Amino acid sequence: MDDRINLAEKFALLGSEYQPAIVGYMNDYKLVVVKTKGEFVWHKHDETDELFLVVAGRLVIQFRDRDVVLEPGELFVVPRGVEHCPKADVETHVLLIEPRETLNTGDAGGDRTVAPIEI
Amino acid sequence: MDDRINLAEKFALLGSEYQPAIVGYMNDYKLVVVKTKGEFVWHKHDETDELFLVVAGRLVIQFRDRDVVLEPGELFVVPRGVEHCPKADVETHVLLIEPRETLNTGDAGGDRTVAPIEI
Repeated sequence: MDDRINLAEKFALLGSEYQPAIVGYMNDYKLVVVKTKGEFVWHKHDETDELFLVVAGRLVIQFRDRDVVLEPGELFVVPRGVEHCPKADVETHVLLIEPRETLNTGDAGGDRTVAPIEI
Repeated sequence: MDDRINLAEKFALLGSEYQPAIVGYMNDYKLVVVKTKGEFVWHKHDETDELFLVVAGRLVIQFRDRDVVLEPGELFVVPRGVEHCPKADVETHVLLIEPRETLNTGDAGGDRTVAPIEI
Protein backbone atom coordinates (compact mmCIF):
# COMPACT_ATOMS: atom_id res chain seq x y z
CA MET A 1 0.00 0.00 0.00
CA ASP A 2 1.32 3.45 -0.82
CA ASP A 3 1.95 5.54 2.22
CA ARG A 4 1.13 9.04 3.36
CA ILE A 5 2.36 11.68 0.90
CA ASN A 6 3.55 14.92 2.49
CA LEU A 7 3.70 17.43 -0.34
CA ALA A 8 6.20 19.79 1.32
CA GLU A 9 8.56 16.86 1.98
CA LYS A 10 8.28 15.78 -1.65
CA PHE A 11 9.10 19.27 -2.93
CA ALA A 12 12.07 19.39 -0.55
CA LEU A 13 13.36 16.14 -2.09
CA LEU A 14 13.37 17.82 -5.49
CA GLY A 15 15.90 20.41 -4.33
CA SER A 16 16.45 22.95 -7.07
CA GLU A 17 15.46 20.60 -9.88
CA TYR A 18 12.68 21.47 -12.31
CA GLN A 19 12.12 17.77 -12.92
CA PRO A 20 8.55 16.45 -12.66
CA ALA A 21 8.31 13.59 -10.16
CA ILE A 22 5.62 11.01 -9.55
CA VAL A 23 4.68 10.73 -5.87
CA GLY A 24 1.81 8.27 -6.22
CA TYR A 25 -0.95 6.85 -8.35
CA MET A 26 -4.75 6.72 -8.23
CA ASN A 27 -6.14 4.10 -10.59
CA ASP A 28 -4.67 4.94 -14.02
CA TYR A 29 -3.73 8.47 -12.96
CA LYS A 30 -0.37 9.73 -11.76
CA LEU A 31 0.20 12.30 -9.01
CA VAL A 32 3.08 14.51 -10.12
CA VAL A 33 4.90 17.24 -8.22
CA VAL A 34 6.88 19.79 -10.15
CA LYS A 35 8.78 22.95 -9.31
CA THR A 36 8.46 25.42 -12.11
CA LYS A 37 9.80 28.85 -12.97
CA GLY A 38 9.63 30.75 -16.21
CA GLU A 39 7.43 29.99 -19.17
CA PHE A 40 6.65 26.46 -20.39
CA VAL A 41 5.47 25.73 -23.96
CA TRP A 42 2.07 26.13 -25.58
CA HIS A 43 0.43 22.74 -25.88
CA LYS A 44 -2.79 20.82 -25.40
CA HIS A 45 -3.90 17.34 -24.41
CA ASP A 46 -6.62 16.22 -26.80
CA GLU A 47 -7.44 13.10 -24.80
CA THR A 48 -7.62 14.35 -21.22
CA ASP A 49 -8.33 17.11 -18.73
CA GLU A 50 -5.42 18.05 -16.47
CA LEU A 51 -5.61 19.16 -12.83
CA PHE A 52 -3.21 21.80 -11.45
CA LEU A 53 -3.08 22.47 -7.69
CA VAL A 54 -0.69 25.21 -6.56
CA VAL A 55 1.07 24.42 -3.27
CA ALA A 56 3.52 27.36 -3.16
CA GLY A 57 4.35 30.33 -5.36
CA ARG A 58 2.05 31.64 -8.07
CA LEU A 59 1.14 29.99 -11.36
CA VAL A 60 -0.25 31.76 -14.39
CA ILE A 61 -1.95 29.41 -16.83
CA GLN A 62 -2.06 31.31 -20.09
CA PHE A 63 -4.88 30.53 -22.49
CA ARG A 64 -5.30 32.04 -25.95
CA ASP A 65 -8.07 34.31 -24.65
CA ARG A 66 -7.16 34.93 -21.00
CA ASP A 67 -4.83 34.18 -18.11
CA VAL A 68 -5.80 32.22 -15.00
CA VAL A 69 -3.75 33.06 -11.91
CA LEU A 70 -3.43 30.42 -9.20
CA GLU A 71 -2.19 31.08 -5.67
CA PRO A 72 -1.47 28.37 -3.06
CA GLY A 73 -4.60 26.40 -2.20
CA GLU A 74 -6.12 27.03 -5.62
CA LEU A 75 -6.68 24.51 -8.35
CA PHE A 76 -7.77 24.54 -11.94
CA VAL A 77 -8.77 21.81 -14.36
CA VAL A 78 -7.57 22.54 -17.90
CA PRO A 79 -10.13 20.96 -20.21
CA ARG A 80 -8.99 18.53 -22.85
CA GLY A 81 -8.15 20.05 -26.20
CA VAL A 82 -7.58 23.57 -24.87
CA GLU A 83 -4.22 25.17 -25.63
CA HIS A 84 -2.42 26.45 -22.57
CA CYS A 85 1.02 27.60 -21.47
CA PRO A 86 1.92 27.67 -17.77
CA LYS A 87 4.17 30.48 -16.56
CA ALA A 88 5.63 31.34 -13.15
CA ASP A 89 7.50 34.50 -12.23
CA VAL A 90 8.68 32.98 -8.94
CA GLU A 91 9.53 29.35 -8.22
CA THR A 92 6.18 27.65 -7.94
CA HIS A 93 5.27 24.22 -6.56
CA VAL A 94 2.48 22.43 -8.36
CA LEU A 95 0.69 19.11 -7.92
CA LEU A 96 -0.53 17.77 -11.26
CA ILE A 97 -3.03 14.94 -11.65
CA GLU A 98 -3.44 13.39 -15.08
CA PRO A 99 -3.53 9.97 -16.73
CA ARG A 100 -0.29 7.96 -16.42
CA GLU A 101 0.49 8.17 -20.12
CA THR A 102 0.08 11.97 -20.41
CA LEU A 103 3.14 13.75 -21.82
CA ASN A 104 4.12 17.00 -20.14
CA THR A 105 4.28 18.80 -23.49
CA GLY A 106 1.10 17.23 -24.90
CA ASP A 107 0.86 17.66 -28.67
CA ALA A 108 3.79 20.09 -28.83
CA GLY A 109 6.67 17.71 -28.17
CA GLY A 110 10.12 19.26 -28.43
CA ASP A 111 13.03 19.57 -26.03
CA ARG A 112 10.89 20.37 -22.98
CA THR A 113 9.43 16.85 -23.13
CA VAL A 114 10.63 14.85 -20.11
CA ALA A 115 9.57 11.65 -18.40
CA PRO A 116 8.86 12.09 -14.70
CA ILE A 117 11.07 10.38 -12.15
CA GLU A 118 9.54 8.65 -9.10
CA ILE A 119 10.29 9.94 -5.62
CA MET B 1 -14.74 26.27 -18.94
CA ASP B 2 -14.64 25.69 -15.20
CA ASP B 3 -12.92 28.44 -13.32
CA ARG B 4 -10.29 28.71 -10.64
CA ILE B 5 -11.20 26.73 -7.52
CA ASN B 6 -10.09 28.29 -4.24
CA LEU B 7 -10.36 25.52 -1.66
CA ALA B 8 -10.63 27.82 1.38
CA GLU B 9 -13.47 29.74 -0.30
CA LYS B 10 -15.27 26.50 -1.05
CA PHE B 11 -14.98 25.29 2.55
CA ALA B 12 -16.28 28.70 3.73
CA LEU B 13 -19.34 28.23 1.51
CA LEU B 14 -20.10 24.99 3.33
CA GLY B 15 -20.50 26.81 6.66
CA SER B 16 -21.03 24.28 9.41
CA GLU B 17 -22.47 21.62 7.13
CA TYR B 18 -20.94 18.15 6.94
CA GLN B 19 -22.34 17.79 3.44
CA PRO B 20 -19.96 16.65 0.68
CA ALA B 21 -19.91 19.12 -2.21
CA ILE B 22 -18.60 18.81 -5.75
CA VAL B 23 -16.38 21.74 -6.75
CA GLY B 24 -15.31 20.49 -10.16
CA TYR B 25 -14.63 17.57 -12.42
CA MET B 26 -11.62 16.07 -14.19
CA ASN B 27 -12.63 13.65 -16.93
CA ASP B 28 -14.94 11.12 -15.23
CA TYR B 29 -13.72 12.05 -11.75
CA LYS B 30 -15.33 14.42 -9.26
CA LEU B 31 -13.51 16.84 -6.98
CA VAL B 32 -15.34 16.81 -3.65
CA VAL B 33 -14.81 18.99 -0.59
CA VAL B 34 -16.13 17.82 2.74
CA LYS B 35 -15.93 19.02 6.30
CA THR B 36 -15.82 16.09 8.64
CA LYS B 37 -15.78 15.50 12.38
CA GLY B 38 -16.24 12.30 14.31
CA GLU B 39 -16.10 8.78 12.93
CA PHE B 40 -17.51 7.77 9.55
CA VAL B 41 -18.42 4.13 8.72
CA TRP B 42 -16.25 1.18 7.76
CA HIS B 43 -16.53 0.60 4.02
CA LYS B 44 -14.58 -0.13 0.86
CA HIS B 45 -14.75 0.68 -2.82
CA ASP B 46 -14.10 -2.48 -4.80
CA GLU B 47 -13.91 -0.68 -8.12
CA THR B 48 -11.69 2.31 -7.40
CA ASP B 49 -8.88 3.93 -5.46
CA GLU B 50 -9.82 7.10 -3.56
CA LEU B 51 -7.62 10.15 -2.99
CA PHE B 52 -7.79 12.12 0.30
CA LEU B 53 -5.98 15.47 0.62
CA VAL B 54 -6.24 17.19 3.99
CA VAL B 55 -6.55 20.98 3.76
CA ALA B 56 -7.21 21.78 7.44
CA GLY B 57 -7.55 19.83 10.67
CA ARG B 58 -6.33 16.26 11.08
CA LEU B 59 -7.72 13.11 9.51
CA VAL B 60 -7.18 9.59 10.78
CA ILE B 61 -7.87 6.95 8.15
CA GLN B 62 -8.40 3.77 10.11
CA PHE B 63 -7.51 0.49 8.40
CA ARG B 64 -8.03 -2.96 9.91
CA ASP B 65 -4.30 -3.24 10.63
CA ARG B 66 -3.17 0.37 11.24
CA ASP B 67 -4.11 4.03 11.30
CA VAL B 68 -2.83 6.63 8.84
CA VAL B 69 -2.77 10.19 10.21
CA LEU B 70 -2.96 13.05 7.72
CA GLU B 71 -2.15 16.67 8.52
CA PRO B 72 -2.75 19.64 6.18
CA GLY B 73 -0.73 19.30 2.97
CA GLU B 74 -0.74 15.52 3.20
CA LEU B 75 -2.55 13.11 0.94
CA PHE B 76 -3.22 9.42 0.83
CA VAL B 77 -4.64 7.13 -1.83
CA VAL B 78 -6.80 4.38 -0.34
CA PRO B 79 -6.44 1.38 -2.65
CA ARG B 80 -9.53 -0.22 -4.11
CA GLY B 81 -11.01 -3.02 -2.06
CA VAL B 82 -9.39 -2.00 1.22
CA GLU B 83 -11.70 -1.43 4.18
CA HIS B 84 -11.25 1.95 5.82
CA CYS B 85 -13.03 4.25 8.25
CA PRO B 86 -12.10 7.97 8.35
CA LYS B 87 -12.17 9.69 11.74
CA ALA B 88 -11.50 13.27 12.82
CA ASP B 89 -11.22 14.53 16.39
CA VAL B 90 -11.40 18.17 15.23
CA GLU B 91 -13.32 19.59 12.28
CA THR B 92 -11.26 18.61 9.28
CA HIS B 93 -11.39 19.84 5.69
CA VAL B 94 -10.72 17.24 3.04
CA LEU B 95 -10.52 17.25 -0.75
CA LEU B 96 -11.57 13.88 -2.17
CA ILE B 97 -10.95 12.79 -5.75
CA GLU B 98 -12.77 9.71 -7.01
CA PRO B 99 -14.88 8.59 -9.98
CA ARG B 100 -18.16 10.47 -10.40
CA GLU B 101 -20.31 7.46 -9.54
CA THR B 102 -18.48 6.59 -6.29
CA LEU B 103 -20.77 6.41 -3.23
CA ASN B 104 -19.43 7.98 -0.04
CA THR B 105 -20.24 4.83 1.94
CA GLY B 106 -18.97 2.40 -0.71
CA ASP B 107 -20.24 -1.13 -0.11
CA ALA B 108 -21.59 -0.30 3.37
CA GLY B 109 -24.62 1.80 2.43
CA GLY B 110 -26.82 2.86 5.33
CA ASP B 111 -27.97 6.20 6.62
CA ARG B 112 -24.61 7.95 6.14
CA THR B 113 -25.00 7.59 2.38
CA VAL B 114 -25.52 11.03 0.83
CA ALA B 115 -25.30 12.48 -2.65
CA PRO B 116 -22.94 15.44 -2.92
CA ILE B 117 -24.34 18.88 -3.73
CA GLU B 118 -22.55 21.16 -6.23
CA ILE B 119 -21.06 24.46 -5.07
